[in-house]
Amino acid sequence: MYSKEVLQALKKARVKVGEKVAIERNGELLEGTLMPRIESGSDNALILKLASGYNVGIEFNAILKLEKLKEKKSKPEEFGVKAIEFDENKRTILILHTGGTIASKVDYRTGGVMTSYSPADLLSMFPELNEISNVKAKLLRNMWSEDMNSNHYSLIAREVASAIKEEKVDGIIIGHGTDTLHYTAAALALALENVPIPVILVGAQRSSDRPSTDAALNLLSAAFFICNGNFKGVAVCMHESINDNMCTIHNPLKVRKCHSSRRDAFKTINGKATARVDFENKRIEFIERMSEPSGEFKVLDRFEENVSLLKIHPGFNYKVIEFLQKQGCKGIVFEATGLGQLPINEIDEFTKKNKKLYAALQKFISSGNVIAIATQTIWGRTNLNVYAGGRDLQKIGCISCEDMISETAFIKLSWLLGNFDSQTAKKLMQENLRGEISERTTFEF
Amino acid sequence: MYSKEVLQALKKARVKVGEKVAIERNGELLEGTLMPRIESGSDNALILKLASGYNVGIEFNAILKLEKLKEKKSKPEEFGVKAIEFDENKRTILILHTGGTIASKVDYRTGGVMTSYSPADLLSMFPELNEISNVKAKLLRNMWSEDMNSNHYSLIAREVASAIKEEKVDGIIIGHGTDTLHYTAAALALALENVPIPVILVGAQRSSDRPSTDAALNLLSAAFFICNGNFKGVAVCMHESINDNMCTIHNPLKVRKCHSSRRDAFKTINGKATARVDFENKRIEFIERMSEPSGEFKVLDRFEENVSLLKIHPGFNYKVIEFLQKQGCKGIVFEATGLGQLPINEIDEFTKKNKKLYAALQKFISSGNVIAIATQTIWGRTNLNVYAGGRDLQKIGCISCEDMISETAFIKLSWLLGNFDSQTAKKLMQENLRGEISERTTFEF
Repeated sequence: MYSKEVLQALKKARVKVGEKVAIERNGELLEGTLMPRIESGSDNALILKLASGYNVGIEFNAILKLEKLKEKKSKPEEFGVKAIEFDENKRTILILHTGGTIASKVDYRTGGVMTSYSPADLLSMFPELNEISNVKAKLLRNMWSEDMNSNHYSLIAREVASAIKEEKVDGIIIGHGTDTLHYTAAALALALENVPIPVILVGAQRSSDRPSTDAALNLLSAAFFICNGNFKGVAVCMHESINDNMCTIHNPLKVRKCHSSRRDAFKTINGKATARVDFENKRIEFIERMSEPSGEFKVLDRFEENVSLLKIHPGFNYKVIEFLQKQGCKGIVFEATGLGQLPINEIDEFTKKNKKLYAALQKFISSGNVIAIATQTIWGRTNLNVYAGGRDLQKIGCISCEDMISETAFIKLSWLLGNFDSQTAKKLMQENLRGEISERTTFEF
Repeated sequence: MYSKEVLQALKKARVKVGEKVAIERNGELLEGTLMPRIESGSDNALILKLASGYNVGIEFNAILKLEKLKEKKSKPEEFGVKAIEFDENKRTILILHTGGTIASKVDYRTGGVMTSYSPADLLSMFPELNEISNVKAKLLRNMWSEDMNSNHYSLIAREVASAIKEEKVDGIIIGHGTDTLHYTAAALALALENVPIPVILVGAQRSSDRPSTDAALNLLSAAFFICNGNFKGVAVCMHESINDNMCTIHNPLKVRKCHSSRRDAFKTINGKATARVDFENKRIEFIERMSEPSGEFKVLDRFEENVSLLKIHPGFNYKVIEFLQKQGCKGIVFEATGLGQLPINEIDEFTKKNKKLYAALQKFISSGNVIAIATQTIWGRTNLNVYAGGRDLQKIGCISCEDMISETAFIKLSWLLGNFDSQTAKKLMQENLRGEISERTTFEF
């Protein structure tokens, strides 16, 4: 709640949240939209969203004048989708949109971010797209990526497959929320084998109508890469740095979101990125080419829903494993510590339950389920041969994820258990299928 | 299993695993200990541990000669602990050892790594320690750190407190396995307030008797920092880079292990490290000084055992929350996605269960328990004000961990619930108590 004084002042000026106001403070005149109070913020300050898109907090005591501005009777912003001309000399890109900040704008009424654009809006927001290629577009979903699950992976995989088989497109861009973009990228890279065209996932960390948005560069770089990269397969295209000039093309099975808000949040882990796109100078530099498709385009689009990703932590309750087994869980990827350790040793009076964890793991595996060990260090490789604990895990059938990041390992296990029996899944989990496991280098440990 | 050919050759030469052999290959003579076969390795290769400590794989086909070497009847290596002379002009350091690679050696029989040194051994392994300071030592445990839990944190905290109060020491070094060293560091930094002397946690990624060990530099740098840094409080001392010349002193509440095997695995997240120790040139460079203790030394050494750290993932089973509540779980730290999102929105036919997760969270909190939201991106800050989903989480009482890393948030919640009622815990969880939460910078989002 605002303080009594603020509420009275707002009432007197007849200003409601979401309305335009002019505020004078220390001789400075600010105009913008009155935002809702942040609950954790001061009850004696107003928040104003400036035309630039930035919010500014203003101490009530510093305010000399508060005035409601007359609202122009403006219509909702019109983008006017241009008639899209088909140019035979240009390549054709299909944009499949699933939602997220890449095509969102700030809701100036509440200050929140909404997903509100149709693919047609997307084209009118980024007219340069049409200069690069012909564009088709389809709205698959309009959702935040934290709500995505394996059903959506199947849906997107099928849409991509049918576009490749039935429509004449030279590349596909998938617009996706960044929060779980790397999970979806891994899912598509596994579900689709020998993809004959580029399929690039693109997200944005800042909404498309903000001055600081990364949406335009990510989208245009992806389109430029599709048309000029001579690339086939699934990849991720996101900002290379906080500067607005380069994008990185990432291996979809080795990339993860490593910052909650920065534009260069996506990083390739345990390997090199695929390429760098210098959109400004229209240059593509390949860093490490992924292997080219070498066979028929295949689709295996099923995913086992009942798979878990568990981060181990001090005091982890072994009963969670027993519970998951009762729930029909078919596989668990552990984010173990270090080289792949779980607390299974009875050392002293405090670690008596550790053996129960070991027994629960053994029971889970002996019932035909899979346990795969990744590491919570993010970087590096698991190695269950170095310490006695790791060898004990191998004894009961736990397998090593090698240098697969845990998110990829989780998606891979879900995909394998969705399409193969558990013994085959266990075998394939340890093999490098699409570039998700790097070769061991000498003296790595 | 080895191939038939290899088994026959070993039998013929009467060589068993763990015995010394001489192998001739391409005119090159190699001597070492025959290691057990790596299960994932070739069945047609031998692994030899050289005197340097490195393992080398030798293709059986390339072996010209295989001979058992006569074992010298050597006694177990003797280190001969020197009588430790007390020098009044030097400071006195207490080494509390809990286990881990910092004081381990490779077991040349099995090739595994064992923890086998007593603190006295430690001193004889690192004689330079005595040049820097007087040394006392005590063995608290001899365990791998993946087995540590909150009971051990209480134990170590009490040992440190009693050493500070009752023994005349100028600093304490805690030898610890690296896997969960950062969890313990966070626990001690919270349990001990206004620590009047330096308390430095030290680990090693490679065993102390390997040529590539990082144990010596980490330990000696910690001792040098204690004696010359004019520092008070808890910190972590580990390799700065893969070079063997510098160590970094980390804020114990902002550091995490970011690589499974590299010597420079420990990184300060969302902030700056405290200092750099150039041991070779005997120089200390402060990067960002932690605030000095400003009151009486206090100990709050209890930790609530029944707290969970959960990484959210696509398809997360909401029933796990209900199960944890039934198990008496008092608090959960979520590794949410991005700015702090959980899958709680019903979007389509696939996300019907999302609302059940929301209901389970609400029930958990309304029963007096705490849910704190951290992010799985590792870097960056959670912000539950940006998206509607975050605001929905706040509505039911979820709190934001700000830029606390999830491991620290988990330990902090366990500590708060161990020493305060849940309302106080909830309030303090959002406050910066010891440097675990950084101030928000302008325009961070």
